[in-house]
Amino acid sequence: DLEAAGGVHGLDEEHEDIRGFVTPLDAALAAVASGEANNAPLLVSLLWLALNRDRLAAEWGPA
Amino acid sequence: DLEAAGGVHGLDEEHEDIRGFVTPLDAALAAVASGEANNAPLLVSLLWLALNRDRLAAEWGPA
Repeated sequence: DLEAAGGVHGLDEEHEDIRGFVTPLDAALAAVASGEANNAPLLVSLLWLALNRDRLAAEWGPA
Repeated sequence: DLEAAGGVHGLDEEHEDIRGFVTPLDAALAAVASGEANNAPLLVSLLWLALNRDRLAAEWGPA
């Protein structure tokens, strides 16, 4: 359960400013489609998840 | 028709070494799944295309 996950993270010396938050997958995919999600690690992760969500739900879904 | 596209491209002064070639989309997606495709611009492009191929085929397919 990641409901309480969040915060700003990263290494000061690398000038990182990484905001973590929890959002439904469909909202995240809407951010991909709109261009709001615009960094490569996030895009690769979300696009991969979109392609594999049905398989993952079947393999790892609620018992 | 990109059948004849290919070659090695890029700027010498940026040490680029970019090999272009034409391959069927399903083969490209197999390379994503296997990990052979391992750079972010290629992954973002191919994953996006995989998610949108049906829509694109409907909108832009053969008349």
